[in-house]
Amino acid sequence: MTAVTTELDVPSGAPARVETPAPGDPRLARLSLNQKTVDGWGLREAIDGCVAAGLPAIGTWREPVADVGLETAARWVREAGLRVSSVCRGGFFTGAGDLSQAARHDDNRRALDEAAALGAPCLVLVPGGLPAGDRDLGAARSRAAAAVEALVPHALDVGVRLAIEPMHPIFAADRGVVSTLGQALDMAEPLPVEAVGVVVDTFHVWWEPGVEDQIARAGARIASYQVCEWITPLPPDALLSRGMMGDGHIDFPRLTSLVAAAGYTGDVEVEIFNADVWAADGRAVVDTLARRYVELVEPHL
Amino acid sequence: MTAVTTELDVPSGAPARVETPAPGDPRLARLSLNQKTVDGWGLREAIDGCVAAGLPAIGTWREPVADVGLETAARWVREAGLRVSSVCRGGFFTGAGDLSQAARHDDNRRALDEAAALGAPCLVLVPGGLPAGDRDLGAARSRAAAAVEALVPHALDVGVRLAIEPMHPIFAADRGVVSTLGQALDMAEPLPVEAVGVVVDTFHVWWEPGVEDQIARAGARIASYQVCEWITPLPPDALLSRGMMGDGHIDFPRLTSLVAAAGYTGDVEVEIFNADVWAADGRAVVDTLARRYVELVEPHL
Repeated sequence: MTAVTTELDVPSGAPARVETPAPGDPRLARLSLNQKTVDGWGLREAIDGCVAAGLPAIGTWREPVADVGLETAARWVREAGLRVSSVCRGGFFTGAGDLSQAARHDDNRRALDEAAALGAPCLVLVPGGLPAGDRDLGAARSRAAAAVEALVPHALDVGVRLAIEPMHPIFAADRGVVSTLGQALDMAEPLPVEAVGVVVDTFHVWWEPGVEDQIARAGARIASYQVCEWITPLPPDALLSRGMMGDGHIDFPRLTSLVAAAGYTGDVEVEIFNADVWAADGRAVVDTLARRYVELVEPHL
Repeated sequence: MTAVTTELDVPSGAPARVETPAPGDPRLARLSLNQKTVDGWGLREAIDGCVAAGLPAIGTWREPVADVGLETAARWVREAGLRVSSVCRGGFFTGAGDLSQAARHDDNRRALDEAAALGAPCLVLVPGGLPAGDRDLGAARSRAAAAVEALVPHALDVGVRLAIEPMHPIFAADRGVVSTLGQALDMAEPLPVEAVGVVVDTFHVWWEPGVEDQIARAGARIASYQVCEWITPLPPDALLSRGMMGDGHIDFPRLTSLVAAAGYTGDVEVEIFNADVWAADGRAVVDTLARRYVELVEPHL
């Protein structure tokens, strides 16, 4: 494993290279906290954490929204003056069998309704993995494409975009059979751009050969830009293997410049699944990600 | 994580679906043991293990060959009547700095000499990862391509092919910046086919969108076909995350048929890095992989 020089101020408390931006700092104008980054917070704490740190947007997850009720959640974010940058997550389309697919379709329709109620511009779609014992990756990818297409009319009705998330191939078997931005665009492009976009998540696409061309190709299809880091050694649980920007190998200035050049003007979500980050104090996590964002991402938007 | 129905007879001892093929069984005619699959064996034990199980070929590693000396190693494999299907490994080209690159070049020349002395048709090249603190993946990929090109004259001189191994993106940061078969072919194609080929390793490429087209494109560039499995949950150490064929998600019949249709007629190496496999009795591991090979791979060659 290659050693990486880190300046990890969460959770280690090492000094940061930039000061924590204060609420009202214009550099925070597009920063969104994906609430999964502070897994210990419920929706109320996450909203309060965004407001306290001066973040104008939040990416919500369905489960914590359901915990308080959709109406309450929508009222809370509205009263806090926050935007909901995305709703995580729909998808999981690849289960075999008509019953499974019909149930998934209905659940994704409800997810679109929830996103609309929250005022979110998009619903992030995690495609899903291979069913148990099924080794036909091509067929699973085709099911995912068909399932997205079937949701287009409802997405247009409620005014929420379906955002296909290509996932790092580490997840191809068990979470996301769409493995590259290029492949996600192949799925999206036959469908209306106002209904179907893609997520550019640095963790998932940083390694992709030709990612420069694919981001340029994506253009107006970029429904969400999410940032988190590829760190080594890779943490033992693949699902929690994401790091804080700046602690690993991803060239955030370059990828951010490419996304900006493609015309993306939306919020930038920080979404980190990591046991150490989750164990840290939520306010410190938000302060850290704000510093890293201001240092590595925002100047290149 | 998706549960996978396993019939893991190493190390669990569950019943196999086919009988262990006996030495002399014609179905074993192209099966090679990559010696890293039985990490506890030195070269002598690995050679004896191949002979005892009726495997006609072995993929050797440089370190265990060096342990006994190159001349002794070459004599042993010759006297045992084995082919050396490949030598692992050269590469690690991506270190920055002229000194590092010159040293790597010289070491790779020696690796080619060793492969020639062993009668191996190819030297497997692991491209290498990003140097510490370096986030320029494009530059690292360019260094790897230039380093391969620089080795072409010596490869032609000694009659050993350079086999670029595209590696699963899980290793893009720390081991292999060449992430897809398509990218490996982009590197190989400007160079003479008799000097530069590619490795098709199921673990590394099974998820690749369009892998069917890339294997067909590879054609005579396929210098080595290696088989091992993608299993979930992914073992905690990414480096030891490979499984026994049949225990995971890879469609071996399909990939094998594609490799055969591309014209590959060489040996098929089983290369598994896995702590449980390494902890098992070496003879049981070889018997198991021979059964799985006869069941899942050989009928499709």
